[in-house]
Amino acid sequence: MVKQFVYFFGPEGSEGNATMKNTLGGKGANLAEMSNLGIPVPAGFTISTEMCAVYYKMDRKYPPELKKQVAENLKKIEDVMGKKFGAKKNPLLVSVRSGARASMPGMMDTILNLGLNEETLQGLIKKPEDERFAWDSYRRFIQMYGDVVMGLKPENKDEEDPFEVVMHELKHERKIKNDLDMTTKDLQELVKRYKAIIKKKLKVEFPTDPNEQLWGAINAVFGSWMNDRAIRYRKMNDIPAEWGTAVNVQAMVFGNMGPDCATGVAFTRNPATGENAFFGEYLINAQGEDVVAGIRTPQQVTLKGSRKWASENGISEKDRKTNYPSLEEYMPEVYQQLVTIYLKLENHYKDMQDIEFTIENKKLYMLQTRNGKRTAAAAVRIAVDMVNEGFISKDEALLRVKPSDLDQLLHPQFIKAEKGKAKMIARGLPASPGAATGRVVFNAEDAEKWAEKKEKVILVRIETSPEDIGGMAVAMGILTARGGMTSHAAVVARGMGKCCVSGCGTLQIDYKARTLKVDNNIVKEGDWISLDGSTGEVFLGKIATQDASFEGEFGTLMSWADERRVLKVRTNADTPKDSAVARNFGAEGIGLCRTEHMFFEGDRIIAVREMILADDEAGRRKALAKLIKHQRDDFYGIFKAMEGLPVTIRLLDPPLHEFLPQELEQQKEMAKTMGITLKKVQEKVEELHEFNPMLGHRGCRLGITYPEISEIQARAIFEAACDLSKSKVKVIPEIMIPLVGNVKEFEHQRKILVDTAEQVFKEKKTKVEYMIGTMIEVPRGALAADEIAVNAEFFSFGTNDLTQMTMGFSRDDAARFTKVYIDGKILEKDPFQTIDQDGVGQLVEIACKRGRKTRPNIKLGVCGEHGGDPASIDFFHRVGLNYVSCSPYRVPIARLAAAQAAINNDIIREMKRTIEDAYGNFESAVKSVYKEMEKKFKKN
Amino acid sequence: MVKQFVYFFGPEGSEGNATMKNTLGGKGANLAEMSNLGIPVPAGFTISTEMCAVYYKMDRKYPPELKKQVAENLKKIEDVMGKKFGAKKNPLLVSVRSGARASMPGMMDTILNLGLNEETLQGLIKKPEDERFAWDSYRRFIQMYGDVVMGLKPENKDEEDPFEVVMHELKHERKIKNDLDMTTKDLQELVKRYKAIIKKKLKVEFPTDPNEQLWGAINAVFGSWMNDRAIRYRKMNDIPAEWGTAVNVQAMVFGNMGPDCATGVAFTRNPATGENAFFGEYLINAQGEDVVAGIRTPQQVTLKGSRKWASENGISEKDRKTNYPSLEEYMPEVYQQLVTIYLKLENHYKDMQDIEFTIENKKLYMLQTRNGKRTAAAAVRIAVDMVNEGFISKDEALLRVKPSDLDQLLHPQFIKAEKGKAKMIARGLPASPGAATGRVVFNAEDAEKWAEKKEKVILVRIETSPEDIGGMAVAMGILTARGGMTSHAAVVARGMGKCCVSGCGTLQIDYKARTLKVDNNIVKEGDWISLDGSTGEVFLGKIATQDASFEGEFGTLMSWADERRVLKVRTNADTPKDSAVARNFGAEGIGLCRTEHMFFEGDRIIAVREMILADDEAGRRKALAKLIKHQRDDFYGIFKAMEGLPVTIRLLDPPLHEFLPQELEQQKEMAKTMGITLKKVQEKVEELHEFNPMLGHRGCRLGITYPEISEIQARAIFEAACDLSKSKVKVIPEIMIPLVGNVKEFEHQRKILVDTAEQVFKEKKTKVEYMIGTMIEVPRGALAADEIAVNAEFFSFGTNDLTQMTMGFSRDDAARFTKVYIDGKILEKDPFQTIDQDGVGQLVEIACKRGRKTRPNIKLGVCGEHGGDPASIDFFHRVGLNYVSCSPYRVPIARLAAAQAAINNDIIREMKRTIEDAYGNFESAVKSVYKEMEKKFKKN
Repeated sequence: MVKQFVYFFGPEGSEGNATMKNTLGGKGANLAEMSNLGIPVPAGFTISTEMCAVYYKMDRKYPPELKKQVAENLKKIEDVMGKKFGAKKNPLLVSVRSGARASMPGMMDTILNLGLNEETLQGLIKKPEDERFAWDSYRRFIQMYGDVVMGLKPENKDEEDPFEVVMHELKHERKIKNDLDMTTKDLQELVKRYKAIIKKKLKVEFPTDPNEQLWGAINAVFGSWMNDRAIRYRKMNDIPAEWGTAVNVQAMVFGNMGPDCATGVAFTRNPATGENAFFGEYLINAQGEDVVAGIRTPQQVTLKGSRKWASENGISEKDRKTNYPSLEEYMPEVYQQLVTIYLKLENHYKDMQDIEFTIENKKLYMLQTRNGKRTAAAAVRIAVDMVNEGFISKDEALLRVKPSDLDQLLHPQFIKAEKGKAKMIARGLPASPGAATGRVVFNAEDAEKWAEKKEKVILVRIETSPEDIGGMAVAMGILTARGGMTSHAAVVARGMGKCCVSGCGTLQIDYKARTLKVDNNIVKEGDWISLDGSTGEVFLGKIATQDASFEGEFGTLMSWADERRVLKVRTNADTPKDSAVARNFGAEGIGLCRTEHMFFEGDRIIAVREMILADDEAGRRKALAKLIKHQRDDFYGIFKAMEGLPVTIRLLDPPLHEFLPQELEQQKEMAKTMGITLKKVQEKVEELHEFNPMLGHRGCRLGITYPEISEIQARAIFEAACDLSKSKVKVIPEIMIPLVGNVKEFEHQRKILVDTAEQVFKEKKTKVEYMIGTMIEVPRGALAADEIAVNAEFFSFGTNDLTQMTMGFSRDDAARFTKVYIDGKILEKDPFQTIDQDGVGQLVEIACKRGRKTRPNIKLGVCGEHGGDPASIDFFHRVGLNYVSCSPYRVPIARLAAAQAAINNDIIREMKRTIEDAYGNFESAVKSVYKEMEKKFKKN
Repeated sequence: MVKQFVYFFGPEGSEGNATMKNTLGGKGANLAEMSNLGIPVPAGFTISTEMCAVYYKMDRKYPPELKKQVAENLKKIEDVMGKKFGAKKNPLLVSVRSGARASMPGMMDTILNLGLNEETLQGLIKKPEDERFAWDSYRRFIQMYGDVVMGLKPENKDEEDPFEVVMHELKHERKIKNDLDMTTKDLQELVKRYKAIIKKKLKVEFPTDPNEQLWGAINAVFGSWMNDRAIRYRKMNDIPAEWGTAVNVQAMVFGNMGPDCATGVAFTRNPATGENAFFGEYLINAQGEDVVAGIRTPQQVTLKGSRKWASENGISEKDRKTNYPSLEEYMPEVYQQLVTIYLKLENHYKDMQDIEFTIENKKLYMLQTRNGKRTAAAAVRIAVDMVNEGFISKDEALLRVKPSDLDQLLHPQFIKAEKGKAKMIARGLPASPGAATGRVVFNAEDAEKWAEKKEKVILVRIETSPEDIGGMAVAMGILTARGGMTSHAAVVARGMGKCCVSGCGTLQIDYKARTLKVDNNIVKEGDWISLDGSTGEVFLGKIATQDASFEGEFGTLMSWADERRVLKVRTNADTPKDSAVARNFGAEGIGLCRTEHMFFEGDRIIAVREMILADDEAGRRKALAKLIKHQRDDFYGIFKAMEGLPVTIRLLDPPLHEFLPQELEQQKEMAKTMGITLKKVQEKVEELHEFNPMLGHRGCRLGITYPEISEIQARAIFEAACDLSKSKVKVIPEIMIPLVGNVKEFEHQRKILVDTAEQVFKEKKTKVEYMIGTMIEVPRGALAADEIAVNAEFFSFGTNDLTQMTMGFSRDDAARFTKVYIDGKILEKDPFQTIDQDGVGQLVEIACKRGRKTRPNIKLGVCGEHGGDPASIDFFHRVGLNYVSCSPYRVPIARLAAAQAAINNDIIREMKRTIEDAYGNFESAVKSVYKEMEKKFKKN
C-alpha cells in the first residue's frame, strides 16, 4: 500500500479532521473539519507533517509517490472549484501556507496568488476594472515568490529589500507617492523590472510554469521549518524539531473583486466581556489583510453592533446606513449563512471561535476557524454560559480559564484610555498585581506620616526590610530598585494584596536628596507617580483607576472549583484584616501566620531591642514580658476572624539583627530612645551581623538559644485561644516550628509549647485542642521527616527556603544569574515562582512519604510562594498534600488551579487506564509505542 | 538455680575474667583476670552491674540471695587473707569501690579502711609505731564514711566541709599546722569529735558494726550511680544509665606499715617515648595516694631509671644510693617479682600497662592494671614494636593509634618547659595545629612587608578574607577574633599547615590604633606573641619551638596503613610548594586545587578588577587575556610537582565581590591604580553586594554568566598540560566544575572545556588525557546525580557546602548557635568537622548510588574538610568512595584513618557473618536478641 502523504479537503468532504492536528497541523485540520461539517471552504489539500521529516531525511528531496498525490489532489481542487491551474481562462490560483501542530505565528513562509503568469492573469480579468487588481496580484506574487522561494533578499542587514528599491525608483521616476496611486501601466512596468532584477541577481528567469511555481513554494515552506527564526521560536517554546510542519495548498478566493465581494473576521462571542453576542468586522471589496491594516474603517457585521458603534462614534443613523451598513443589512442572505455557520462551529467546537471569511461574488467562504483569545472576564463568562447552555461539562468549564488570569479580576486596574496617555518612565518586575497612584515618599516613616494626613503615597525604596512593614501597609503601592519576584517587598506586597513593582534596576534613588532618577526624569518627594503591578510599568503622574467587580459567573465558577478540588486552600495572613479579606476570597484557614510583625509594631520594637541588648535570660524575660498582652490581642483578633477554621502560627523566624536599625540615623535614634550610647548600639549591630543570614541564627535556632521567646509566643497563643474558647468561639490553633532540620530541634521546641499549654490551661481553667507541627524548609528536615513525624502532627512545606537551600540560590541575589539561566534554558522557569519538581520536588516527595510512613494521618500543606502557583499546585495535588496556602489575593487562583489539578490528574489516570487496558500495563505500553516508532523511523 | 550476683577473685582463682567487663566493670574484670593469671591480688569480690539495675528496680533494695552471696564471699576473703572481718586480732579491712563498664574517673564513691572500729583498730597495731597509723586510718575512715555513706556534707555551697571545720578547730586549739604533726592523741580526740558531730547533725551514732558499715558502703556505691555528677558525666559521654556500676569489695593491704612496705605506680613501657623500658616510681612506707600527691619525692623503680633521674637532678651516686635507692636495689627480690608480673601482664594484654602495686611487709600485691595512656609518639612506637615482638598483628597495631593524635607529630611544638613559663592571655579555637612565635601585624600587606625584612610575624585579624592570602602565607601563625573551626582563616591555615587560633572572642582588635587588647593586656604592633594552634592558647612574648621529627616507626606504621586501606588519599593543594609537602606526606594526587589565588596574586588582581569593571564580553576577554600566561605557569608548576598523579582542578568558585576591596582605604587605592573614580569603585562594590553570598553568584554560575572565565582557565590548564606532556612529564588533569545543581549547568561548562581542549590540542599538535567531573555540593546536585553522571566522569563531594545547604547552616555564622546545640545534645558533633551521616550523609549516599547507576565506574571522592576527619573517613569508606582529599598536614591522618575504616568494617562484617551463622540473618538476630532482653527485663 502506498503511504498517504496528501489529504484533500473541500465541500465533497475531507480526508482529514480536527483530531488530526499532529498529521495536518492546526490550520489544515480545522479546514478539513469545517469542510466535513458542510461549511463552504475553498478546496485544497494538506501535505502532512510526516513529509517534512521525510523531506529532511531524504536530504531535501521527496519520495516519488508525493508528486503523484499532489497532482491528483490538485486535479480534485480544479474539479471542485471549476477552475484550472495554469489555464488562460478561469485559472485556478492557490495559496501555499505552512501549518504546524502548535501555532508558530509568522515564523514560516506563505505564498499567495500562486499560478499567475502573464497568460493566466488575463483569465482573472473578467471586466475592465479587474485589470489593475490582476496586475497588482501578479507583482505581489513575484515579490513574495522572489523573496521567499527564490531567496532574493538584501545582502546584508543595512541594505534595503531589492524589490522595495526597484519600486522606490519607479515611484520616484513617476512621481508617485502611494502604492495605491500606481496605475495598471505602472504595475506592468514594475513586473518587468522585478523580473529583470531577479534575472540579474539570481541568473535565472522568474518561473512562468505554475507547476514549477507550486513545487518551489512547497520546498520553501518545508524549508522554512529550518530557518533561524523558526528554530529560535521552537527552542523558546519547547517545540520539537521532529514535529515538522504541514503544507496547505488551497484555492484562492478574492474579497476584492468588486462590490459583491467582502472579507471579514469575527468572534462568535464578545472576546472582551464574554457576552453571548456575535461580534465581527468586515470590509466590502477588500482583502483580508485590509481589515487588520486599518487603512479603511471596518464595518460591523451585525446590525446591533453597527448601531452601537455609530452611537459611540457620533455617526448618524442615516450616515451609518449609507456609508457603514452592517453585513446584516448589506448582504442579508450571506449574513444569515454566516450566522448559521458560526453557530454550527461553536456548537461543534464547544468554544468561542475566532473566524475569518471571504465573500467572492456573494459566495461565502470560510478561511479559518480557531478558538478565540479572550480576556479573563470573558473566559469566565463564556465557560459558565457554555455549561448552562449545555455545551460543555463543569470540568471542561473549569479547564477553560487560566487560573493566573483571574488575578486581573481581583485588583483595581487603570482605566485603559487614561493609561494610554500616561508617560512610562521605567519597567520593573510585576511583583504584585493591581494599579496604584500616589505621591512619592522615600521611607516608611514618611509614608505613615503622610497617610495620617490622608495623602495617597507610593513608597519608593532601594529595597524594603521588615522595618518598613508599617509604611508598606499604608502605601497605595510599593516600588523598589532591587529584589526579585520573591524579594521582601514582593512577598509582603502580595500578601497585602498591594500593588508592587520590584527590581526596577534603572531607578537611581537618592535617599538624602529625596529624589528618584530614571534617564532624564527626576521625581521628587511628593510628586505623583503610578504603578502597574501586573505589568511592572512605572508612569509619571496620576492615572485614574477602577475597582474590580466580581460578576455572578465568577462566583459560579469558583463554586464549581470548590466542588471539584481535593486540595484545601488556606491563606498566608498575619492580621485580622488580611484574614477577613482572604476568608472573603474563600480561604479555608490560615496556612501561615507570620509572627514577626508582632515584634515590630509600634512600641513593641523597643521591648524587643531591650531583649536583644539584655545580658542574660532574666533581662530577656523582663523585656519580653512587655509584649505578652499585645501579642495575645493580636492572636485574639486573628483567631476571631478565622472562627471555626484552622490557623497555623509560625513561631518567630527572622534573625535578630533584623530588629536593629542598620542606618546611622536610626541607630542614633535607637540609642537616644533607649538611653544607651550609639557605640553600644553599633557594637550590637556588628555582633549580630551575619555573612549569610539565610543560613544563620533564625527559625527554631532562636527559640532554642532563647527558649523564653518561644515561651512567650506560646503563652500569648494559648491565652488568646482560651479566652475565645470561653466565649464559645471555636479556635483551631496549629503551631508551627520553623527551620527544623533535626528531630531534636523539634522536640526541644515542642516541649516548651506543650509545657506552656498545660500551664495556661491550668491558669485559665479550660482547655483548647491544638496541634504542633513543623515547617519543612531545610533539606535535612525533609530527609529526617520520618523521625520528625513521630511527634509532629503536621508538616507545612516552606518551599521558598527549601528551594533556596536545595538549589543553593539566595532569592535576594539569584536575579544576577537566573535571567541568563532562563534565557539559556538552563532553568525552565524561575524556581521561586514554580516549584522545581525534579529537584526540590524530590525532597517534598521524600518528606511526604517518610512523614506518612511514621504517621499515616499527618496533615501536609505548603505555605511557600508556590502555594499560589498553578503549575506548582498541580504538583502538590499529585504528591497528595492536604492543602496549599497562599496570599489572600491568590486564594481564588489557587482554588481554580486545585480544581484543574484534580481534573487533569483524573484525565491522566483515565488515559493511563485506557492504555493499560490495551497494552497490559503502562510501562509495556510505553515500550510498545517506542518500538513502533523505532520501526517507523528506520523504515523512513 | 539462684542467680549469681557476686563474683570472687583471689589467688585461688577468680569467678570472673577480663572479658566480663559488662558484668564486673573494668576494675573488677581486670582484678579477676590478674588473679587468674596467678598474679598476687588482695582477695575480694565484685557485685555485678546487673545488681545495680535490680537495686533501682526494687526501689533501692536487694533480693535476699545477695546478702547470702556477699556473706559467703566475705568468708572466702577471710580464708585467703588469713584475717577476719570485725575481729579484734588481725582484723580484715576492706575497700569498697565502684567500677563501671566505661571508666568514669572520680564520678562515683570509694570507701577505704572499712571494718574499723575502736576494737578492730587495736588489731592493726602490731608494734608501737603502728599506733598513729591505725588512728589516722580510723579518722580517715570516719570522715570518708560520714561524708559518702552517711551524707554529712556542707549544707550549702558557701559552707566548709563539717569534718574540715572540726579538724581546723582542733588544729587551731593545739596550734598544729600540718596534718602530719597530729599525734595519736590528737587523732583520738579528732575521732571523738567526728563521731560527736555526726551524732549532732544526723541524730545517729557512727556505726561500729563492720557488717552495717559494709552494707552502708555498698548502698552508697550503687547510690552514687545516680548522683548528679555521674548523671552529667554519663550524659556528656553517652553512657546509658542502664549499664549500672559494679561494686568491688577487696581486702585492704598497706604500703605504709613500715620500711618493709612500699607502694608505687609503673608503666610497662615509657609512656612519653614508647621505648620498651620498664618505667615506674615508688615510695617506701607510704600510701598509694602519696605517690601522686607530691609531698615526698618518689623514687625510681629501676636502677637504670634511678641513675638517669639522679644525673638529671644533679644528685651524686652516693646520695642516690643512700637516700633514693631504686626498688631494684632496695628490694631486689620483690623487684624481680614485679618484673615477672609486668612482662606477664603485657604479654597477656598485648598492650602497654599502667599498673599499681603495694608491698606490705615485703609481700607484693597488684592493685590495678589497665592499658596505659601515652603520647602519640609513644603510641606509634609501641604499636610497631609490638608487631615486631610478635604480640599483635599489623591490623591491631593500626587500630592502636588515634589518627588525630598523629597531628602532634607533624608540626613544630613549643618546648614544654618554655611554654610553662609563658603568660597565657587568651584562648581561642585550636584551628590549625602547631606552634608559632612572631611579632604582631594587623594586616596582610604589613605581614608581607615585614616578612621581606626577614621578620617573623603573626598576622592578627578580626577575620580573614581571600585578599589576605599573601599575608597569611608569609606569617608564622594567624590569630583571628571571629570565625569558627571552618572559617576562612582556619581552612586556609590548615591548608597551608600553618598554626592558627581562630574565633578568639575576647580579643579587642583596633586596626587604627594597631593594638590588640585582652583584659588588661595591650599588645602593640611589633610586640611578640606566641600561638599554640593545637590548644588555642595565645601567649605574651616569645616561646622557643622544636621541629617535628618522624621516627622510623612512623614510616613503618604508615606503610602498613597504605597496605591496608582501600580509600586513596589525596590532598587539597593550590601551589607547587603545598603539592610537594603533601606528596612528601604520602598524598596520591590533588583532590582539590583551588584556582582563586591565580586571580589574586600580585598584579593579577588588577586584570581581574578590569574584567569586573568591563561593560561587555570583549572588555572582559581583554582583561582576562592578561592572566593566561601566569595561570599556565601556575598549572605547569603544580602538574610538574604532581607528575604521574591526578590533579583535580576546580574552576573559579568565589563570588566576584571577593575580588573587590571592601575597605575605604583599599578602594581609594584601587581607584588610583586603575585610574577611575572612587565612586565607580564603590558603585561596583555596591552592585556586587550579596545578601547571602554562599547562595549567590559563584561557582559554575560565574562560568555560565561569563563563559570567557571558564575558557581562559581551560586554556591555561590544557596549554600547561600539553607543554609538559611534550617534555614527557605525565600529567593527569581532572577538571572539576563547581556548584552544579542541574545537569544543564554541567553540560554548559563541559562544552566550553571540551571545545577549548580540542582547540589547544590542535594548536599544540598534541593530546593529553583528561577527565571532566563536578563537585557535588548543592543538595539538588546530589538528587540529580543520575543525570549529571551521564557525562561527568567523576564526582567530588564538597561536603562543606553540602553541609551548609543541607542543614541550612552558614559556616561563618553557625557558631552563634552550634555551641548551644552541642551542649544541649541537639547536635552530637560540629557538622563541619565530622560529617552529619544521618542527614548530609543521606545525600552523599543518594548521589553515589545514582551516579554509579548511570556510570558504574564513576570516580568518587570528597574534598571538603571532612576528607581529613577520621570519623567521616569511616563513613566515606562505607559508602565506597574512591578517595578522600584533605590538607597536606592531614594526609598521614587520613591514611591511618582510612586503614582503620577498612579494618573496622572488616571486623563488623565478620561479626555480622558470625551472628548470621548463628541466627540465620542479621535482622532476625537483632530481633532475637531484642526479645531475649525484653524477657530478661520483664523478669527483673
